[in-house]
Amino acid sequence: MRSPTLVLSGDRFFADYHLTGTEEAARTKASDICIEQTVEFPADLLPAGDIPDQIVGRVESFRSLSPDCFEAQISYAIEVVDDGLPQLLNVVFGNISIKPGIRLERFHLPESLLKTYRGPRFGRSGLRTLLNIKKRPLLCSALKPMGLSAAELARLGTDFVRGGVDLIKDDHGLADQSFCRFQERVGECARAINQAARVEGTTCLYCPNVTAPSDQIRQRIHFAKEAGAGGLLISPGLIGLDVMREIAEDDEVGLPIMCHPALLGSYVVGKTHGISHFALFGQILRLAGADACIFPNYGGRFAFSEEECRRLVEGTKEPMGHIKTSFPTPAGGMNLGRIEEMLRFYGNDMILLIGGDLHRHGNLVDACRQFRTLVEMSG
Amino acid sequence: MRSPTLVLSGDRFFADYHLTGTEEAARTKASDICIEQTVEFPADLLPAGDIPDQIVGRVESFRSLSPDCFEAQISYAIEVVDDGLPQLLNVVFGNISIKPGIRLERFHLPESLLKTYRGPRFGRSGLRTLLNIKKRPLLCSALKPMGLSAAELARLGTDFVRGGVDLIKDDHGLADQSFCRFQERVGECARAINQAARVEGTTCLYCPNVTAPSDQIRQRIHFAKEAGAGGLLISPGLIGLDVMREIAEDDEVGLPIMCHPALLGSYVVGKTHGISHFALFGQILRLAGADACIFPNYGGRFAFSEEECRRLVEGTKEPMGHIKTSFPTPAGGMNLGRIEEMLRFYGNDMILLIGGDLHRHGNLVDACRQFRTLVEMSG
Repeated sequence: MRSPTLVLSGDRFFADYHLTGTEEAARTKASDICIEQTVEFPADLLPAGDIPDQIVGRVESFRSLSPDCFEAQISYAIEVVDDGLPQLLNVVFGNISIKPGIRLERFHLPESLLKTYRGPRFGRSGLRTLLNIKKRPLLCSALKPMGLSAAELARLGTDFVRGGVDLIKDDHGLADQSFCRFQERVGECARAINQAARVEGTTCLYCPNVTAPSDQIRQRIHFAKEAGAGGLLISPGLIGLDVMREIAEDDEVGLPIMCHPALLGSYVVGKTHGISHFALFGQILRLAGADACIFPNYGGRFAFSEEECRRLVEGTKEPMGHIKTSFPTPAGGMNLGRIEEMLRFYGNDMILLIGGDLHRHGNLVDACRQFRTLVEMSG
Repeated sequence: MRSPTLVLSGDRFFADYHLTGTEEAARTKASDICIEQTVEFPADLLPAGDIPDQIVGRVESFRSLSPDCFEAQISYAIEVVDDGLPQLLNVVFGNISIKPGIRLERFHLPESLLKTYRGPRFGRSGLRTLLNIKKRPLLCSALKPMGLSAAELARLGTDFVRGGVDLIKDDHGLADQSFCRFQERVGECARAINQAARVEGTTCLYCPNVTAPSDQIRQRIHFAKEAGAGGLLISPGLIGLDVMREIAEDDEVGLPIMCHPALLGSYVVGKTHGISHFALFGQILRLAGADACIFPNYGGRFAFSEEECRRLVEGTKEPMGHIKTSFPTPAGGMNLGRIEEMLRFYGNDMILLIGGDLHRHGNLVDACRQFRTLVEMSG
């Protein structure tokens, strides 16, 4: 049997994998990926012609990174993935996510594929324009802890605004719970935050958490927008990366998206499998429309290393055609004492997210002012 | 400041975690989880009262499994997660997915929570009724390789039916590609498969792949159903677990769901982090509505061990109130020569999925008949 003649453009995209093992094992892994991620069919049974020649992936390069780690670049025909983000993820990492010793490091999409994605609606420069902040890092805090009433959370929001915080997000654990309903919380917090911003003459974007059951996301976003939300908090690990992409591309929503990493951690914490910080938190979340990408800073409650954070940030600004950059938002047990160091490490182009620690200094408004002053002094 | 008085039922649910490290480190991890997964707030700053007493998780038990692995059972108030599957996943594993050395092993939901989930619409017994197969394992094969035309895939479908296969799924890489469009493929394959089943006087369910961009899933399902599909293939790792749950619960869809593991692998392949095979492929996918759960069999192209497969199968039938069992569907490079062994290992209550190997025996219809005979002899 011969393969059918396929009319393909010849355009290909590239994915780089880190493969653990001996050189021989790594070379075998590389050729297996070419099959596994495309035809998933015994190579010797494929009909000769366009299927093996065009559809099956190709190892474009192979090099040693260390005695037991190798990098293979594999190319795929763009037509194989030209059906949106789920199919792109499927081909770059779907089945091989189940195989140890394979890590997706980065990918390279030609303009012919990139043009099918909108990416972040605002990105770094768009968020700066919205907030009218030219150079300094943006300041963010979170409404928490879970268990407070809507009125109490709204009061915290007012204090954050008075203290000079630029972005206020819901804690990602605030959903639609019987002890604090979504509509009551978002209504009261939006009203209080917007009112305080008018009084202070500042801009502050309230980003309520709209991560919700699939059939309720739309109405929560609609409610949030009507109530005066200035952005949205979404955990794509909980609702689906492509659901976030759809929201980001929807002109009727049109709000910046802060992206929370809940349930995404398993992709990155295994050093020799999964997806790199660069590809997941940088490239993939940008294709999925994240304007800001929250991640655990090194030296906090989580285990990201400095190098991982550095690579992650590179992913948020890696050139990808018209796809905008996203704002790195290191968080996870940060405190005022670390601001100077974080500014040295990340530079000005970040969102500084400090949550619980602001409550450690007695008066919350004063703590926020101190936060703002420290950033303005160092930034 | 005192916590507000919260009106909670007192009902709690339980999650078991395996924690790697010294006993001291594991005990610290257990108490950290209680905070991290709920209030995410410094414990010493929490207002006394109902927030620490009710909202924060509680370590209910702690025991040693080995010198460097401990199991902690942690309970949470049901009100914290009573907002659907995304929030349940958020609380049982959202933030701690980013921490190494923590693995979600299983969870226990009371009826008060379970009642908010429909679970698999058919489950094992419902699928058996649909197919009118009382005891033997079900036979499944896949339309592949990617690159074939709709007519060629339809011809394979006809052969599968004539050979006595019960379920025919699209390869999970078949999307809506320019070289083989979704509507043409699903239309032709459904027509051919249903026609062949009428001729043979058998029942065979065609499960097209409706994994698609978020804004196109509905129309593809609608088209598939109109075209005569007997089930759906969905990769929830690509589109979101809760999107699958919504489809499964939709009475207007009403078709059995075969669930493909693409992009879910990173949750299970790290032995000391992520989610157990039991919890992910068993418990979670059942809450998300999977009637059949495809997973890589031990000894195939992937790296699941016998023990992992055994535990996975236990998760597909673990008692969970009214939530139906799901059909374990071991796959991934299976062949006719392994059927007897697989039947010994899994028993009759499984779907045997053999793909590429059926093409190795010359005539496809004969290979399928051999497949069927081997199962009927051994089953």
